[in-house]
Amino acid sequence: MSRNVPNKIYLPESKMPKQWLNLQAVMPEKPDPYINPGTMKPAVPSDFEGLFSCELVAQEFNSVDKFIDIPREIQKYFKMYRPSPLIRAYALEKELKTPAKIYYKYEGNNTSGSHKLNSALPQVYYNKKEGIKALTTETGAGQWGTALAIACAFYKMPLTIFMVKGSYEQKPYRKALMNVFGSTVIASPSLTTNVGRQINKDFPGTNGSLGCAISEAVEYAVTHPKSKYVLGSVLNQVLLHQSIVGLETKEQLALYDEYPDVLIGCAGGGSNLGGIIAPFIKDKVDGTGNPHIIAVEPASCPSLTRGVYAYDFGDTGHMTPICKMYTLGSTFMPSNIHAGGLRYHGMAPIVSKLYHDKLIDEARAERQTEVFKAAVLFAKCEALIPAPESSHAIKVAIDEAIKAREEGKAKTIVFCLSGHGNLDLSAYTNYLEGGLDDYIPTEEDLSKLRQALPKV
Amino acid sequence: MSRNVPNKIYLPESKMPKQWLNLQAVMPEKPDPYINPGTMKPAVPSDFEGLFSCELVAQEFNSVDKFIDIPREIQKYFKMYRPSPLIRAYALEKELKTPAKIYYKYEGNNTSGSHKLNSALPQVYYNKKEGIKALTTETGAGQWGTALAIACAFYKMPLTIFMVKGSYEQKPYRKALMNVFGSTVIASPSLTTNVGRQINKDFPGTNGSLGCAISEAVEYAVTHPKSKYVLGSVLNQVLLHQSIVGLETKEQLALYDEYPDVLIGCAGGGSNLGGIIAPFIKDKVDGTGNPHIIAVEPASCPSLTRGVYAYDFGDTGHMTPICKMYTLGSTFMPSNIHAGGLRYHGMAPIVSKLYHDKLIDEARAERQTEVFKAAVLFAKCEALIPAPESSHAIKVAIDEAIKAREEGKAKTIVFCLSGHGNLDLSAYTNYLEGGLDDYIPTEEDLSKLRQALPKV
Repeated sequence: MSRNVPNKIYLPESKMPKQWLNLQAVMPEKPDPYINPGTMKPAVPSDFEGLFSCELVAQEFNSVDKFIDIPREIQKYFKMYRPSPLIRAYALEKELKTPAKIYYKYEGNNTSGSHKLNSALPQVYYNKKEGIKALTTETGAGQWGTALAIACAFYKMPLTIFMVKGSYEQKPYRKALMNVFGSTVIASPSLTTNVGRQINKDFPGTNGSLGCAISEAVEYAVTHPKSKYVLGSVLNQVLLHQSIVGLETKEQLALYDEYPDVLIGCAGGGSNLGGIIAPFIKDKVDGTGNPHIIAVEPASCPSLTRGVYAYDFGDTGHMTPICKMYTLGSTFMPSNIHAGGLRYHGMAPIVSKLYHDKLIDEARAERQTEVFKAAVLFAKCEALIPAPESSHAIKVAIDEAIKAREEGKAKTIVFCLSGHGNLDLSAYTNYLEGGLDDYIPTEEDLSKLRQALPKV
Repeated sequence: MSRNVPNKIYLPESKMPKQWLNLQAVMPEKPDPYINPGTMKPAVPSDFEGLFSCELVAQEFNSVDKFIDIPREIQKYFKMYRPSPLIRAYALEKELKTPAKIYYKYEGNNTSGSHKLNSALPQVYYNKKEGIKALTTETGAGQWGTALAIACAFYKMPLTIFMVKGSYEQKPYRKALMNVFGSTVIASPSLTTNVGRQINKDFPGTNGSLGCAISEAVEYAVTHPKSKYVLGSVLNQVLLHQSIVGLETKEQLALYDEYPDVLIGCAGGGSNLGGIIAPFIKDKVDGTGNPHIIAVEPASCPSLTRGVYAYDFGDTGHMTPICKMYTLGSTFMPSNIHAGGLRYHGMAPIVSKLYHDKLIDEARAERQTEVFKAAVLFAKCEALIPAPESSHAIKVAIDEAIKAREEGKAKTIVFCLSGHGNLDLSAYTNYLEGGLDDYIPTEEDLSKLRQALPKV
């Protein structure tokens, strides 16, 4: 364990990646094409252009260019908070008495509090460039909404956010953050859209869901002139933007001749996982490296470990294209766990395909009580409160470090700490007071949902 | 405006200061001595040793050594979050169309969220080293309590925090943070101490005050074996520890041949202001530099601008030593403004003396509505939500940048952004909804309070 590695490895701004890495172009086998739910035929770019900016649609369909330039304007903004630090968890290593070296890429040190800003900025930039006058989106836990609000404030772009009603009421600080940056936040289901009114009528008093909020944001965008919709995860374009996380990580490790033996990311829609693994997947494909990659999901929403690899809708309201992915079924209602960012029935098509093709080596499902236990241990050692989502990665990193101790192996463990938990403190209080449950869906529930998959 | 200055100036960990700068030893005239309220004679170190660790008392009374070594153990921990970045506010400069260069030293990128951790760590370290088994403190806004909880978790030191009841109820996230790190948090006035019980009896239903919480923490420490009390501001030792902020800032600026024309800090007890100005005060004394130093306080608690320079108690309960400082009177009850960290009737004796001797050039009192307006503008430009306390410095930095524009002068403006406002979002909501008041004490109120000053 060489003590000359600093606690925090910073890259100079001049070393920030100037290109994104496009996993679609790197993968030996491409994800299956999107299906247009109207025609039930493979979707073409023009199917998406009513909803998304043209440049983003081009990125969504680009399976040719391995590297895509990051526009200078975006680089300029990125430099306000990037490169993000890669941190050596010395205190955690000591506490665990492990011979393993533990590194975490910390994406929480910007005011949005997570990696979401990495995709929010380019999405707003391209829309602005194409003359779009307003954006809409949805947010569940609030990280994406916050990131987009910050990016929109910077580019002076009006933004309407449909926030899942349960979160809206439980997380006034998240709403306040979006308001400070000038965004309009509407609790979903709302009375603003047809789909919202219908859901309110059908399910009086509902707390809403991400699927519903997506449908509302989509309707709002298509019914307002010069408005477009943006999405913070799942899509190929989002994983492209998040590749900057992995590219920096690889470069930071290389400064100290390090390379991951084990590489870990939590997985909800797949954005931070897809980001941190990007250059390492390329290494696997090129035969220049072979870290053991582990995706970590909540036991209550286990799409990779207990879902099926099939064509399914991205939203509950069935307004989105159909995509091939690991899914629990688009009507799956995830339990009300605190890792709101991991409560999604599906998984990014790219991540799904990589897992299916064994380029992502392993997926684990973890219970939230165990995850919070790991989070508190981490917090006390590293003086950093992790987001409940990111804490799934921490749980597995700790398990791997203990395993390394038991095996007497000095492994290098790297994980993505995708965000801070400073706005999730009520969840921590809940955990400390013994009030957390572990919700595990039954096999019966899951098999029922599978029957509702669209026939493609 | 040379574009080769990066957005964020980081020092490598190897360049982190290895010594603190002791303002007491640097000042041409020393602050007047503390007075022991029992004997009404100048206090000696042994008067403090029942309450504080011996090493910290030695620092409190050290007016000889200009530089004091930072123990290696403390340096090691500091490196988990220091050196902190010095950030060039390019986006704010652009928004203000100012020829001024604006830099801010950002102390909010650690989980305590402020500069308070810089003094919490050494205070816990010295107590631990001297065999102390438990610590007590008070916290108002919560920044100090959080920082101390984090430091105590690291050193595995039990901590009891008396938190002003109003804050305790309004800021459940702050309490939760301290709990995550394993501290006990008690709403003050409590039923745990004699002084707390008395205050509850005399003022049923009171929301408490910092003065009362200090008295409770002091009583708790002296009535429990092997327990000591620690304090996060005002004291000479705290300003000593905070000098690392200024030392880093000066070094970071020097990397780009910069030096402040104007240097700004908010001032409540004086800890972040005393920290950022330390090496620049030395420059003034040595004749090697002469930045215009501005202290910014709330108009509702204007100790420097409307208080008197006199001997006074540090707490409402009159349990602390008497010190010479700018004060509004120890029974002054500050209004319930959102910059809780600036609600203190007095000011650090060192800061007071520097201001009295004109080494601090100017003090300004700002209204909280104007301060929040500046904070929101800053947030939108710099993608960072500042603490209400730190926003006082922002307000004046913006005023100075506008003045520079009007004068056509390319000044270098430097301020301390002492903490983030991510846990102060209800205050922002309050501001955005037009619910903030500006409380200004009347001249009559202030003159009454002055009559209660102790006769020394």
